[in-house]
Amino acid sequence: MNNDVFLRALLREPTEHTPIWLMRQAGRYLPEYNATRKRAGSFLALCKAPELACEVTLQPLERWPLDAAILFSDILTVPDAMGLGLYFADGEGPKFERPVRDEAAVARLAVPDPNVELRYVMDGVSTIRRALNGRVPLIGFSGSPWTLACYMVEGGGSDDFRQVKSMLYKRPDLMHRMLAVTADAVRDYLNAQIDAGAQAVMIFDTWGGILPDGHYQTFSLGYIRRVLEGLRLEREERAPDGSVRRVRVPSIVFTKGGGLWLEDIAASGCDAVGLDWTVNLGQARARVGDRVALQGNLDPMILMADGPQIQAEAIKTLESWGAPQPGQGHVFNLGHGISQFTPPESVTALVEAVHSYSREQRRRGAAASGL
Amino acid sequence: MNNDVFLRALLREPTEHTPIWLMRQAGRYLPEYNATRKRAGSFLALCKAPELACEVTLQPLERWPLDAAILFSDILTVPDAMGLGLYFADGEGPKFERPVRDEAAVARLAVPDPNVELRYVMDGVSTIRRALNGRVPLIGFSGSPWTLACYMVEGGGSDDFRQVKSMLYKRPDLMHRMLAVTADAVRDYLNAQIDAGAQAVMIFDTWGGILPDGHYQTFSLGYIRRVLEGLRLEREERAPDGSVRRVRVPSIVFTKGGGLWLEDIAASGCDAVGLDWTVNLGQARARVGDRVALQGNLDPMILMADGPQIQAEAIKTLESWGAPQPGQGHVFNLGHGISQFTPPESVTALVEAVHSYSREQRRRGAAASGL
Repeated sequence: MNNDVFLRALLREPTEHTPIWLMRQAGRYLPEYNATRKRAGSFLALCKAPELACEVTLQPLERWPLDAAILFSDILTVPDAMGLGLYFADGEGPKFERPVRDEAAVARLAVPDPNVELRYVMDGVSTIRRALNGRVPLIGFSGSPWTLACYMVEGGGSDDFRQVKSMLYKRPDLMHRMLAVTADAVRDYLNAQIDAGAQAVMIFDTWGGILPDGHYQTFSLGYIRRVLEGLRLEREERAPDGSVRRVRVPSIVFTKGGGLWLEDIAASGCDAVGLDWTVNLGQARARVGDRVALQGNLDPMILMADGPQIQAEAIKTLESWGAPQPGQGHVFNLGHGISQFTPPESVTALVEAVHSYSREQRRRGAAASGL
Repeated sequence: MNNDVFLRALLREPTEHTPIWLMRQAGRYLPEYNATRKRAGSFLALCKAPELACEVTLQPLERWPLDAAILFSDILTVPDAMGLGLYFADGEGPKFERPVRDEAAVARLAVPDPNVELRYVMDGVSTIRRALNGRVPLIGFSGSPWTLACYMVEGGGSDDFRQVKSMLYKRPDLMHRMLAVTADAVRDYLNAQIDAGAQAVMIFDTWGGILPDGHYQTFSLGYIRRVLEGLRLEREERAPDGSVRRVRVPSIVFTKGGGLWLEDIAASGCDAVGLDWTVNLGQARARVGDRVALQGNLDPMILMADGPQIQAEAIKTLESWGAPQPGQGHVFNLGHGISQFTPPESVTALVEAVHSYSREQRRRGAAASGL
């Protein structure tokens, strides 16, 4: 691979700079993305067309020297494959035609075959891998079982998560059954992505942070652990000379609003923990030690500011994590998906600041240890 | 006063039971509230009519032996008094006719005289005090400067807080000027409520949790501290025999999503810290020691469950805080306002569980220390 800095940082191996990629880096803030989406006809059509999904996945890499690509897809493809009927109402976000609201609906849930019902995703992964041709690693992903359950029960987004929490508090047995099926679906889905070529996997637990302490550990993290335990996190890679070697596929768990539970997440079996911007990165590093790498955690809204301000905040984030040490790793990212209103030149300033300042940190560290 | 358990818990003095009140306890889940609101014509008219505000403030106390009353009002009365033109669009939440978006608008901001522009609130406070007649203490409140600034800049609610964060990151000088004026307005507003009879004050920092670590301390907590420093937290109370004594007016700071910053909040000068349900209450207690009392932290959605489930969660919360100790205090509450969809009988189960189980905890503690 030409650039494996991202994978090495996740595995807490030394790197020449701090790798950076951005959640939702292929998205509406890019005019070229909007052009492809228009050609596809809709967001969902774009997700379901492997060649077009590949095209938008690569677009941000044409602009910036990002250290990873992430599969262009949506976390709701899994419940869609479970028969819930995903659609996007104009300006309203995702919806399901058949939300899961009662015992009968939960009983009907079954684990889809990702190589059949989600074939288009696997075709996307292998298409992107071929197109990347070793340039940077490709990240596969899924929503966490709990986060998927939120959408499956609510039937879309929610302000108060009343339906899903009502089921959890009134019928924990139903919620456990639903999460168990969903966790197995997520496990099979991520394993299929790994088989198709994903070189790292990330679990987006967007709504774990709405749960009370205690319930988070049981209903969100517990099922993330179940997924991680079932993943085949090694893959065979064939080198140009035909030889085959086994490589590790690192996993990242990101619970938005999960900063208080960092130690629990770090003990879930993942290689890295994603953090949002409410977390002090230096304190987080001290809390996890060398158990996991960390990913994050700039507020995406900082990209609304001017270049020098963005650079200053990027440097503050790098300084907060601190000096690189063997056995620890940091992947720079935002603490949430990039906003559709982001001026692309803000990303230019950010990527340049992270790469150059993190190289400078390493030079300083090397000079200091040479004294 | 007939029942000062709430005030004593805030001041970390021994109490016979754990006091309980509920954020938004006078609200749409109560049929009698909806009837009064209908008579008033609108939510805003209800806020602005002292007699009707008094009526709804007392309604939950007629139903349950709650340990405190809270002034019925809205956090946006302050920016309204600053001339921004508060209104409520049908089903859309609060809006401002004149949001604060540029330097000129920030320059125009001035501190209102709470006894003039917010006279109706002070009349409400004194009316409620008379009607309560010492039954339970009355809590006054305000939004935090940062939370008010969020609404003032966005012009209403927001999903991403892009406008207010853009101002913060691009023009921190403007944001500081805005927060300074707003903090002085909040200080004067709370002091006027204390003068009118409020026996405790609470600062609702609903949106502090959207800020990055570091910026929270500067832009939200820093201005909360400025408010607290300017409060006259002692008031003169005249006893039936005509004698006058000085009593403490405890202050509570509640940053939703602020669990990571608990130590910082506890050092802000407040008497108590409000917690949402993501925080482990026992761990929080260990983190603050005897510096402040704690208030919280049940997920309001637990009230969608059945009576025995609600009681079990209430007991879990009490057990999580642990055995009462001299110099520490706990006020039971939800971690956010009660939902409009709450069945009133759920509150019956909750209040009964908190009162009876917390008495039981004290009996057990007394028996154990008697051995």
